[in-house]
Amino acid sequence: MKAVTFGEVMLRLASPGHLRLSQTSVLEMTFGGGEANVAVSLALLGDEAAFVTRLPKNDVAEACVQRLRGLGVDTRSILRGGERIGIYFLESGASQRASTVTYDRAHSAISGISPADLKWETILQGADWFHFTGITPALSDPAAQAALEGARAAKKLGMTVSCDLNFRKKLWSREKAGQVMGVLMEHVDICIANEEDAEMVFGIKASGTEVTSGKIDHGRYVEVATKLTERFKFKGVAITLRESFSASHNGWSGLYFTGGKAHFSRRYDVQIVDRVGGGDSFAAGLIYALGKKKGPQEAIEFAAAASCLKHSISGDFNLIKLSEVEGLLGGDGSGRVQR
Amino acid sequence: MKAVTFGEVMLRLASPGHLRLSQTSVLEMTFGGGEANVAVSLALLGDEAAFVTRLPKNDVAEACVQRLRGLGVDTRSILRGGERIGIYFLESGASQRASTVTYDRAHSAISGISPADLKWETILQGADWFHFTGITPALSDPAAQAALEGARAAKKLGMTVSCDLNFRKKLWSREKAGQVMGVLMEHVDICIANEEDAEMVFGIKASGTEVTSGKIDHGRYVEVATKLTERFKFKGVAITLRESFSASHNGWSGLYFTGGKAHFSRRYDVQIVDRVGGGDSFAAGLIYALGKKKGPQEAIEFAAAASCLKHSISGDFNLIKLSEVEGLLGGDGSGRVQR
Amino acid sequence: MKAVTFGEVMLRLASPGHLRLSQTSVLEMTFGGGEANVAVSLALLGDEAAFVTRLPKNDVAEACVQRLRGLGVDTRSILRGGERIGIYFLESGASQRASTVTYDRAHSAISGISPADLKWETILQGADWFHFTGITPALSDPAAQAALEGARAAKKLGMTVSCDLNFRKKLWSREKAGQVMGVLMEHVDICIANEEDAEMVFGIKASGTEVTSGKIDHGRYVEVATKLTERFKFKGVAITLRESFSASHNGWSGLYFTGGKAHFSRRYDVQIVDRVGGGDSFAAGLIYALGKKKGPQEAIEFAAAASCLKHSISGDFNLIKLSEVEGLLGGDGSGRVQR
Amino acid sequence: MKAVTFGEVMLRLASPGHLRLSQTSVLEMTFGGGEANVAVSLALLGDEAAFVTRLPKNDVAEACVQRLRGLGVDTRSILRGGERIGIYFLESGASQRASTVTYDRAHSAISGISPADLKWETILQGADWFHFTGITPALSDPAAQAALEGARAAKKLGMTVSCDLNFRKKLWSREKAGQVMGVLMEHVDICIANEEDAEMVFGIKASGTEVTSGKIDHGRYVEVATKLTERFKFKGVAITLRESFSASHNGWSGLYFTGGKAHFSRRYDVQIVDRVGGGDSFAAGLIYALGKKKGPQEAIEFAAAASCLKHSISGDFNLIKLSEVEGLLGGDGSGRVQR
Amino acid sequence: MKAVTFGEVMLRLASPGHLRLSQTSVLEMTFGGGEANVAVSLALLGDEAAFVTRLPKNDVAEACVQRLRGLGVDTRSILRGGERIGIYFLESGASQRASTVTYDRAHSAISGISPADLKWETILQGADWFHFTGITPALSDPAAQAALEGARAAKKLGMTVSCDLNFRKKLWSREKAGQVMGVLMEHVDICIANEEDAEMVFGIKASGTEVTSGKIDHGRYVEVATKLTERFKFKGVAITLRESFSASHNGWSGLYFTGGKAHFSRRYDVQIVDRVGGGDSFAAGLIYALGKKKGPQEAIEFAAAASCLKHSISGDFNLIKLSEVEGLLGGDGSGRVQR
Amino acid sequence: MKAVTFGEVMLRLASPGHLRLSQTSVLEMTFGGGEANVAVSLALLGDEAAFVTRLPKNDVAEACVQRLRGLGVDTRSILRGGERIGIYFLESGASQRASTVTYDRAHSAISGISPADLKWETILQGADWFHFTGITPALSDPAAQAALEGARAAKKLGMTVSCDLNFRKKLWSREKAGQVMGVLMEHVDICIANEEDAEMVFGIKASGTEVTSGKIDHGRYVEVATKLTERFKFKGVAITLRESFSASHNGWSGLYFTGGKAHFSRRYDVQIVDRVGGGDSFAAGLIYALGKKKGPQEAIEFAAAASCLKHSISGDFNLIKLSEVEGLLGGDGSGRVQR
Repeated sequence: MKAVTFGEVMLRLASPGHLRLSQTSVLEMTFGGGEANVAVSLALLGDEAAFVTRLPKNDVAEACVQRLRGLGVDTRSILRGGERIGIYFLESGASQRASTVTYDRAHSAISGISPADLKWETILQGADWFHFTGITPALSDPAAQAALEGARAAKKLGMTVSCDLNFRKKLWSREKAGQVMGVLMEHVDICIANEEDAEMVFGIKASGTEVTSGKIDHGRYVEVATKLTERFKFKGVAITLRESFSASHNGWSGLYFTGGKAHFSRRYDVQIVDRVGGGDSFAAGLIYALGKKKGPQEAIEFAAAASCLKHSISGDFNLIKLSEVEGLLGGDGSGRVQR
Repeated sequence: MKAVTFGEVMLRLASPGHLRLSQTSVLEMTFGGGEANVAVSLALLGDEAAFVTRLPKNDVAEACVQRLRGLGVDTRSILRGGERIGIYFLESGASQRASTVTYDRAHSAISGISPADLKWETILQGADWFHFTGITPALSDPAAQAALEGARAAKKLGMTVSCDLNFRKKLWSREKAGQVMGVLMEHVDICIANEEDAEMVFGIKASGTEVTSGKIDHGRYVEVATKLTERFKFKGVAITLRESFSASHNGWSGLYFTGGKAHFSRRYDVQIVDRVGGGDSFAAGLIYALGKKKGPQEAIEFAAAASCLKHSISGDFNLIKLSEVEGLLGGDGSGRVQR
Repeated sequence: MKAVTFGEVMLRLASPGHLRLSQTSVLEMTFGGGEANVAVSLALLGDEAAFVTRLPKNDVAEACVQRLRGLGVDTRSILRGGERIGIYFLESGASQRASTVTYDRAHSAISGISPADLKWETILQGADWFHFTGITPALSDPAAQAALEGARAAKKLGMTVSCDLNFRKKLWSREKAGQVMGVLMEHVDICIANEEDAEMVFGIKASGTEVTSGKIDHGRYVEVATKLTERFKFKGVAITLRESFSASHNGWSGLYFTGGKAHFSRRYDVQIVDRVGGGDSFAAGLIYALGKKKGPQEAIEFAAAASCLKHSISGDFNLIKLSEVEGLLGGDGSGRVQR
Repeated sequence: MKAVTFGEVMLRLASPGHLRLSQTSVLEMTFGGGEANVAVSLALLGDEAAFVTRLPKNDVAEACVQRLRGLGVDTRSILRGGERIGIYFLESGASQRASTVTYDRAHSAISGISPADLKWETILQGADWFHFTGITPALSDPAAQAALEGARAAKKLGMTVSCDLNFRKKLWSREKAGQVMGVLMEHVDICIANEEDAEMVFGIKASGTEVTSGKIDHGRYVEVATKLTERFKFKGVAITLRESFSASHNGWSGLYFTGGKAHFSRRYDVQIVDRVGGGDSFAAGLIYALGKKKGPQEAIEFAAAASCLKHSISGDFNLIKLSEVEGLLGGDGSGRVQR
Repeated sequence: MKAVTFGEVMLRLASPGHLRLSQTSVLEMTFGGGEANVAVSLALLGDEAAFVTRLPKNDVAEACVQRLRGLGVDTRSILRGGERIGIYFLESGASQRASTVTYDRAHSAISGISPADLKWETILQGADWFHFTGITPALSDPAAQAALEGARAAKKLGMTVSCDLNFRKKLWSREKAGQVMGVLMEHVDICIANEEDAEMVFGIKASGTEVTSGKIDHGRYVEVATKLTERFKFKGVAITLRESFSASHNGWSGLYFTGGKAHFSRRYDVQIVDRVGGGDSFAAGLIYALGKKKGPQEAIEFAAAASCLKHSISGDFNLIKLSEVEGLLGGDGSGRVQR
Repeated sequence: MKAVTFGEVMLRLASPGHLRLSQTSVLEMTFGGGEANVAVSLALLGDEAAFVTRLPKNDVAEACVQRLRGLGVDTRSILRGGERIGIYFLESGASQRASTVTYDRAHSAISGISPADLKWETILQGADWFHFTGITPALSDPAAQAALEGARAAKKLGMTVSCDLNFRKKLWSREKAGQVMGVLMEHVDICIANEEDAEMVFGIKASGTEVTSGKIDHGRYVEVATKLTERFKFKGVAITLRESFSASHNGWSGLYFTGGKAHFSRRYDVQIVDRVGGGDSFAAGLIYALGKKKGPQEAIEFAAAASCLKHSISGDFNLIKLSEVEGLLGGDGSGRVQR
């Protein structure tokens, strides 16, 4: 399986431990971004994965390319130009205190991309899967156009196209998102979302009100998946089911809806090391499993297990091996020392 | 609202993570102390806050002043003189292992203070609230005298005076504490304590025995608050209710007793990052809320929420913003990432 | 009480926090190994403790000797020679992700030991207890021979001999382990194990199947202890009872079987800082308590409490003081700050 | 003496030690910028100093304000608004390898300033000195306008105005610089520059060619100062004389030209810890000394000594006390331990 | 130009700053080894570079591959197998105290290589240059055999072959080195060495004695180069000329002898950050320049400049860009900040 | 040779790198003090060395004992009691900026020592050498009394007694020092000093004035040594000759005056990593060499070489091996990597 993802990768600057930005004198420097995270996951699981973006010609961007390439991602189609790499600052929360993300991503190289600079036929050659998220079209009109052209080219080549809705309210309005994403969805096979995304972008939500607080109401998620499928004729819709008890403790599972049928994964109780990138690791797990022609139940279990493990990893990237996912799928979540 | 607090601020030297002092080759250098912690909290919440103490003229003390000033605390009334800044060493425990505090605070500059050097009328000008803790009078007789003069001056100026009993058995005996604090209480409007403090300092405890282990018996706390109020004619008594399951996990809530009526806050389940300074952040929350003329229930909820969040912050200071306390009060303790 | 332990001590190189080896640019450098861990625990609890091994003449090994000596372990009988100190790399897991240990211990100095170089009569002079683990004989034939000679000499001198089975599947086969350990057991008074060790090494397991998943079945452990005692005529058999809920959260207790009777300790719920060396701290606690002539129930409670606390300490060594174990035995596992 | 400075302060992200950006996983987080550096220096030397800029409302900017305020700088006139704080990345060179600065300052809050938002009459009330650098007008037209209005207001209030030319080729062209700075110079009393600045901005350079490589040719600097004075009627011109032997070793001295006479300072041989901000510390030293009504020779000696010491300090800010500058002026550059 | 290098890459564990191994609790984890260092340099300068070695299948080796791949080295021909990656411990000296290297490289994966596993015809396809050092054949007989086969295949394919003599007295005797290297030299075009290497391996040294201590005697180096050329018919001989004044300060230049003529580079005075890998960066610079068909004087200047800059970089790898080498060649060693 | 030293050991808290105390958020935690430094040096060189002091019973002091014991120092005669361990804060200077030491040592455990608690006959049993410095008697009268009793007991036992004058102006006046030290000198065989010490304590200085600035005037030092010898009948007087060019660069050599003859060591040019403890390492080198019955020239060369190397070591302790001193004595100060 060879997958290509397209989007923004940012410099991630995190305060160490649970320090606030006003307390720290050092920032941990890594990189991350929805589509880059997916590419890294796929490469580490064993697929061929290429990541497409636009980055400036400076030492920070160079460090980013080196990190991606080191992890096995094909970076040869990355355009170089523009002024800056987007940045986000992260404070890691705990207990009742939420993690905070401060974005400094405006005017990034990718937002000033010229869609014509991407030769999608060449880039996608030999690839099976194209993936992007709702963040990319939200960055700028040219970025949206580039994503659209990528998706179209992929469909023309017979590839599978997936999109994680990932609504970001600081980047665009619900109205604009609905309009732009609506057009993009025509070229999408597999839609990944959470209940909030669907409502924010497409106004799709479950009927009635959430009655059982603290407990996931499976029916509501099936309803959302069904409506999404009906509107856009997706081959599959995947939804992450996060129960946020606190910044330190979450419940985690997933739903994959396909062929009119809902498949729920096992539910995990997770102690959180870092939840940023959790959704991306879910998307990657799903793509990996579907790319390996696993059935829907197997696929959603794989996605949930891979992303469950992500929560124990610092940084956006899910640095987990296939054998570790398989171990958890096989039932071993005991955390016994592996000697 | 403008508040003035008076007491000792110490150099806090903590081993990183959960390391023991014998394991570490570096110590994390911050500053803290009951009344300084309250001043910082108030300044960050948006009040004007001044902190009064005595510090030596050296580079360590200068670093302390810079930190306080940076956080918005008015440090202009700090006396400079004496030989040393008090120090405490901290090992952060986990699970069944308790955190340990090793004090090295004897002979600190404030213990050798000359009460006459503090011109309280000037210092308190324009202020609404005066706060100190039971640690200050325990440091030395001159420090106790200075606290007394501060409280008297505050009352004369029509200010509200609060005191956190904070009994420290290594600093003085129960007898001496009872005698000195008894005199000070005459000038105190709001008394902050925990059940143990009241018993240690004034011999006030609930009748009968604690029957329900592991569960807070609300009635006993009301009894203690009632007795304190009766003895000292306090306008209000606030008590923190900590359930210490382990060094990693506590229950947390508070009681505010005023006008013959007990107001209990919501109870929080906290995963602990650092609980030193938790009581001070509660006092600050209460002062802030009462200073804003919030009612007793609202005030105790604010104090509990602010101090709940403190447990997620490293260091003595409660580096939390008003909007974060309000978010938790509004019901969001889910720890979802704030983007 | 004076104890002598014999085995390998390794350089332990751990990634910080929960980082993976591929993420980190620094490794935390400490030392550890079953028998060295026991010696350190005993020395810190107040016993005289000597550790015997073979280490190369280089700066890394010298740092190891300095650390052991600093902690109060008598290092004068350590042989110096050979080429390298064994190494293990450690990644600390969290939640469903297990910690991983990557060994690089082949060809270590102790594996090339000449048994005749150890003058056991001199080394053991004045000692009361000899301890080794199943790792030592697994390292090489000469190491096994040295352990055997040590145990024989200890028995001849009337000392108590204990052995922690500690089966390591990467070092030898079950067949070889059974044969070599069988011979060694003839000289052993106190056998320490877990259910898996007994089965792996001697094929001893409880009858029937584990029915109640997630809950420790006490009867099965008693059965294993009984069978071990019958086969080898041990004075006592101690078994650790670990419930691995996740890499972050375990249940912990122990069983001591002696005189035909099983003594179970109190069970602890532990939040894990570092569980490597947990079994060794249990062995040390048991040896300490038995050496102090405590009864079997008191001894297993001491061993369980000491090793419960180990889980809150970073590194192999259980850097806990006697007073802390006694505090926990006295019922204080509340983690309240010790001022 | 009370001084006000106006300009941009940036987040400075430096790799530790001499690491390249591609090697490091952490960045040291401090703040700096020409005019902020001057304000900090003046505050630490004992003057009153206020810094004026525009910063966004986010946690990074808040940390910056806290740092400035902690160091004694009056931050009350800082405007809050805009999207981002400028950033620069720093790699510290050594030997023949130069330090590199990667700017990411476009679109910063100050570049989008509305000049009318700065009420200069209020801001400058009670102040004696106004300082800015050539970087501020280079940021954007509104920033240039704001600097112009500040300088005009200062002159109207009878204050002294100083400007450090500080030409930055990445921010604007020589042509634009010459034109904008030419207008600004009409309001400037003291011009600070280096030979290159004068040539880049105003085309002013010494006649003939630099003959003695490796040795400062004093005459050429006097010529430049004379020409600058002639063109703009400055009261004084100060020029830094840096001899760059390598990234680790520089010669350092200064010239102050006033009343038609050149005053050269003593020359220092410096081992470099961090040379960024060296020029700003020179400007601050000069302003401090002239503000204290020191004569020209004394002033240039003070400026050179203060900035000599800056080279031993990490970060943009010159964290040096008056007593240390005076010690060096008094002849003690021996570096003997001060106990 | 495409180059292939073959040899060992080790885990490098260095104490931070100038700490001794007995002082540190962390080790800086990087990777290095003569031939890997050359491959990295070439990739960063812009050549295609592949590195061939044998590494075990574990997480430490995986981190090594990721680092090399990230830096642009083609790692696809690396064999995976064997038990361990070689390790070296480094203490960084200063002033009169030398840096120390403690090797722990015995039994590494590459020493147990099966020469037949390397399909040199495939590996070298499309390559122009093959490089190895005298360390590779010193590791083991199979490693020597593999190097020989590589060199032979390269010659057969018409490639240029270079070898850095790099005598390591702890790996083999002078006798064995002379014999094995003598055979290898038959396939070598470009020999890189220092005076000591030539004497240790081949007994080739200058006549007479070194008279001018502290000053490089150029004539002696020419004599050695001449003798080496005569014996082995090299196309070129390059020798590094290091003047070791102290661990902090060296002189550095190089000689390239070809066509009967000696070309000496400019001499650099270097303040040392890290000199390990200095020789390798010289070899890489030479290979790069000769591969670009530069003349002998230009080539030795390039090699000397590139390796001069290496001394300012932490770690084995010379993380220097082409533009930086060219800048130094152009005469700018002033270390002025690059903005 | 077995040596016993008596004095204070302090917690040393140093800011990392060249950071100022106001910049750092961590402090490096080591231990040091004149006599402890000497004991550590001797133990590492191969002598038996015991250190006598008084330390409180707390975790910080325990860490200190562990460090000393780990380095091979006999700590069994250390008294435990009192309230605190002395502390000093260190900022490491560079270039013209001096390192600064901020003491916080008043009220330390040793200052409150009861001289009678030290059983000198037992402590000194089997020892050959007793060493103390002028700091010990300066701490308090009881500490002076204890030093006196130690020196007397040592003389009675036929041991050699050495004293490093080490005048500390913050601890006592010149008058008091002269009086107390005068009495102590009666029991001293070897006096170690610098020119300033002799003048400060005993008013002994060279006649005339220092004419050649920047160059050591050997004659003046001989004159001081001669006068000291005449007054106190010392067997030998050793003086360190430090040329303080800057905080980064010193000249270093020594003089040993005995039998009416002056022996000057070779002079070293040192790049400074840490000069604190330099004098102590000189004293230790001298004691070691004299204890090994080396002649005066050999002894002063050894002392100078050992202490030259100390300047390259972080921390008070001279972590240098005998072989390294011998290497430097043998002429190798080239700093070439030792592989």
